[in-house]
Amino acid sequence: MSQDRFTFANALVKRAGAYAHEYFTRLDTLNIESKGHQDMVSEADRDTEILVRKAIAEAFPDDSIVGEEGDPKPGTSEYTWIIDPIDGTANFVSGIPQWCVIIACVKNGEKHIGVIYDPCADELFAAEKGKGATLNGTLMKVSTSDSLSNGSIGLGFSARGRNQAVKDAVDALLDEGGIFFRNASGGLMLAYAASGRLIGYIEEHMNSWDCMAGLLLMEEAGGICQDINVADAVMNGCKVVAAAPNVYGQVKKLTDKCFI
Amino acid sequence: MSQDRFTFANALVKRAGAYAHEYFTRLDTLNIESKGHQDMVSEADRDTEILVRKAIAEAFPDDSIVGEEGDPKPGTSEYTWIIDPIDGTANFVSGIPQWCVIIACVKNGEKHIGVIYDPCADELFAAEKGKGATLNGTLMKVSTSDSLSNGSIGLGFSARGRNQAVKDAVDALLDEGGIFFRNASGGLMLAYAASGRLIGYIEEHMNSWDCMAGLLLMEEAGGICQDINVADAVMNGCKVVAAAPNVYGQVKKLTDKCFI
Repeated sequence: MSQDRFTFANALVKRAGAYAHEYFTRLDTLNIESKGHQDMVSEADRDTEILVRKAIAEAFPDDSIVGEEGDPKPGTSEYTWIIDPIDGTANFVSGIPQWCVIIACVKNGEKHIGVIYDPCADELFAAEKGKGATLNGTLMKVSTSDSLSNGSIGLGFSARGRNQAVKDAVDALLDEGGIFFRNASGGLMLAYAASGRLIGYIEEHMNSWDCMAGLLLMEEAGGICQDINVADAVMNGCKVVAAAPNVYGQVKKLTDKCFI
Repeated sequence: MSQDRFTFANALVKRAGAYAHEYFTRLDTLNIESKGHQDMVSEADRDTEILVRKAIAEAFPDDSIVGEEGDPKPGTSEYTWIIDPIDGTANFVSGIPQWCVIIACVKNGEKHIGVIYDPCADELFAAEKGKGATLNGTLMKVSTSDSLSNGSIGLGFSARGRNQAVKDAVDALLDEGGIFFRNASGGLMLAYAASGRLIGYIEEHMNSWDCMAGLLLMEEAGGICQDINVADAVMNGCKVVAAAPNVYGQVKKLTDKCFI
């Protein structure tokens, strides 16, 4: 009997998180100046992705896999898995306990499963299309805030992004009485938005392995996300504008001015 | 025999952290929309400060106390305690596990003790003047980064601050190839800078209960902080510019342009 993909994804993301967390703990014992430090982080990233890919390939050999590390694995089924072994690598490297493992699954060009696990806080954010979203098993909802001045907006930035987009977004947000939050893990910030901790999350460009799970979490928790072409985004990434319903209009207007 | 103030502060900040964390855990069981939520946060803030004040007054009845909540308690000794029961209240309210309890002690107008405890991650950052700084008992050092593009700068902002200062700092930092980090707990970000996780921390104005412990942590971990008049800062707060030695010059130049 074939396993249920959602149950499988929940267990796998926790196993991968525990595995990566062992590396994170061992980093403590290494001198941060030593070259061994960066090597171990790269090793943690690579080995965690290998663990995830192997588990998926064994359980669902016909599914495709796209990951941050390594080449895409083509498949013949209608399912594509999208994985980020460690989101928030800069935090991981420097010892900040704010990073996560992300696993998403797309079915026939639609978001189907999104799970994000933060091993340091032992928090599992999980969503399956049409079935709501949970945090450690408890149903979660986006914020009811109806003003940018009531709550924080997660703001993402990567080396690929345009500085000007971030500058403009900061300016516009402050002008509206809002404030940004940036803990350097886009996946975790999207999960925070889905759980109502942040009122939204914006980033001009994210890779699919960073955002696909979080976008489904947002939608299943009652949030609104700017439309994307999922199939295109899987390979090329996309713009991410996601917010609680009562502030989405304001957030969208703001990003329309700032993001390409 | 009178207790050693540093040992006392270490134990007290952990006790206060565990106490506040009980409230944080109970918040989970409350509907985030209910009025009871904000009430419980205010209660947690107030009761944790009462716990800390009571412990200090019992152990060192002659010392002064300044706290975020409540009026200053005058004293006759050369010691003044400065306490923030919950730093990162917005995170605490919304369920983000990134907040801390801060206790500092000033002796004759000089920073003497600084302890910051993050109950969610169980991390205790502690420093005593002239004796180095530790994270959970292990000696910690600031970053060896020599470039703003190698590491993140913590950026603080409060409702008291000027929007323009934050906008200018974001612009200047990005122009120099740097990036900001803002997890909405100034105390925790200063502790991260002291432990080398961030390469520095800047905020145009901080209250003494938010910054005094972190400034000592930075100095004792080998960082550089812009000079402040401690006695004045205890009552009126101060500008905070703190960074690892090899980037301090660049950070100072940047804040000189952006901050009043």
